[in-house]
Amino acid sequence: MKVSFVGSGNVATQLAKACSAKGITVVDIYSKSINNANLLAELVNAKAVSNLNDLTTDIDLLIIAVSDNALLEIANKFEHFTASIVHTSGSTNIDVLKSDNYDYGVIYPLQTISKSKEIDFKDVPFFIEASNPDLKLALSIFCEMLGSKNVQYADSALRMKLHIAAVFACNFSNHMYAIAEELMRKNALDFELLKPLIAETAQKIQSMSPKSAQTGPASRNDTLTLEKHLQALHSEKALFDLYKAISEDIAKIQNS
Amino acid sequence: MKVSFVGSGNVATQLAKACSAKGITVVDIYSKSINNANLLAELVNAKAVSNLNDLTTDIDLLIIAVSDNALLEIANKFEHFTASIVHTSGSTNIDVLKSDNYDYGVIYPLQTISKSKEIDFKDVPFFIEASNPDLKLALSIFCEMLGSKNVQYADSALRMKLHIAAVFACNFSNHMYAIAEELMRKNALDFELLKPLIAETAQKIQSMSPKSAQTGPASRNDTLTLEKHLQALHSEKALFDLYKAISEDIAKIQNS
Repeated sequence: MKVSFVGSGNVATQLAKACSAKGITVVDIYSKSINNANLLAELVNAKAVSNLNDLTTDIDLLIIAVSDNALLEIANKFEHFTASIVHTSGSTNIDVLKSDNYDYGVIYPLQTISKSKEIDFKDVPFFIEASNPDLKLALSIFCEMLGSKNVQYADSALRMKLHIAAVFACNFSNHMYAIAEELMRKNALDFELLKPLIAETAQKIQSMSPKSAQTGPASRNDTLTLEKHLQALHSEKALFDLYKAISEDIAKIQNS
Repeated sequence: MKVSFVGSGNVATQLAKACSAKGITVVDIYSKSINNANLLAELVNAKAVSNLNDLTTDIDLLIIAVSDNALLEIANKFEHFTASIVHTSGSTNIDVLKSDNYDYGVIYPLQTISKSKEIDFKDVPFFIEASNPDLKLALSIFCEMLGSKNVQYADSALRMKLHIAAVFACNFSNHMYAIAEELMRKNALDFELLKPLIAETAQKIQSMSPKSAQTGPASRNDTLTLEKHLQALHSEKALFDLYKAISEDIAKIQNS
């Protein structure tokens, strides 16, 4: 099986590495930046390409893993392809790839993926969609080859709902860590001190619902403490507003 | 050593159980509700009390672990005590316990603590404060006896800063999980699907800074996706506002 990647970012990097590790030939890595293409291509023994017209067409699957904005810009530039083409975007409709010349689909890994952090795809649910049943079967087998124990079908509307929930569960919780890190730094406190707390918070919801796992001043309705915290954040409007809005939402959910 | 607890909530429960497990005698458990006092007292072989005047005074340490609002109401009701008295609140000043009759202090465990989830205090940093050096030493040894490998001194001002950072790192990230769970439920999707994502998000920051671990549409400046998500949340004003505010703050931090 021969695959190529359009993109050299977080998702392209980890998928290409997983392909390579599983014995799937990675033919080309495309990036607008030939340097970025080279960096990933070297890792997976592929050819680096910075012009879409230089992509090898004699492959089985082209995986487009770029930002959603970039995907819209380049989605219609593969009319000379006959190989199947998929994107990896949570919130972009499958039809962005619509064509009479090739089959098209989506493989969406429900995971936070960074270049520098190895991913074990065993624990990653993949949601697939395809323009025809044969490609759907092929994508399902492909995701299992990458190691996933959980490959499911989701249409574009459902995939976006999954993506929105994932943004809250992952990107937004990570941003709460980022704010905490910045608050610690400003007070010359070591972020290390919060790591057991963050680990336990995530660990708890593996066996409890987040609602019943909640602790802290907002869930206890400790109004005096909420006021003290808001007063302490008074000079940082964005943090003040976030603290207030999230605390009010916690109180609402805990009392519902 | 003989300790008693005022409170029978999450923190009182886990501290009392840890005391009992380490061979420290738990004398009384006070709660306004005798039923709640009984539930915890039975677990740690103590006497249940629902009137503060019934507390045994011949003990070594009284630990007040109640909500911050409740702490303020009862803090001055122990003038007949000579035993040392501490509270466990992150954001209440040590002076709330000020007295000429007894030594007083604070033991603040930097962890999310629920009744129903066993805590290994080995991984819990404790921040202590005391009205005199002898009590400070005693509290330090006490927290180590409970298992903590990380006992530090923090005055009331610093403790509140730690608490605010902890609210973001823990309570607010947990609330993002709660919102995600609710979004999944509304779409008949299983929250189980998000558990590997939540685990990986928390795992990443053990070795990366939250800022560099960030992924998702806001950090990629995927404006089209952000718009789609906001449109999908349009009918739920609180979620819409949170999504917008947090995404804007992510974009600001990622570009700083």
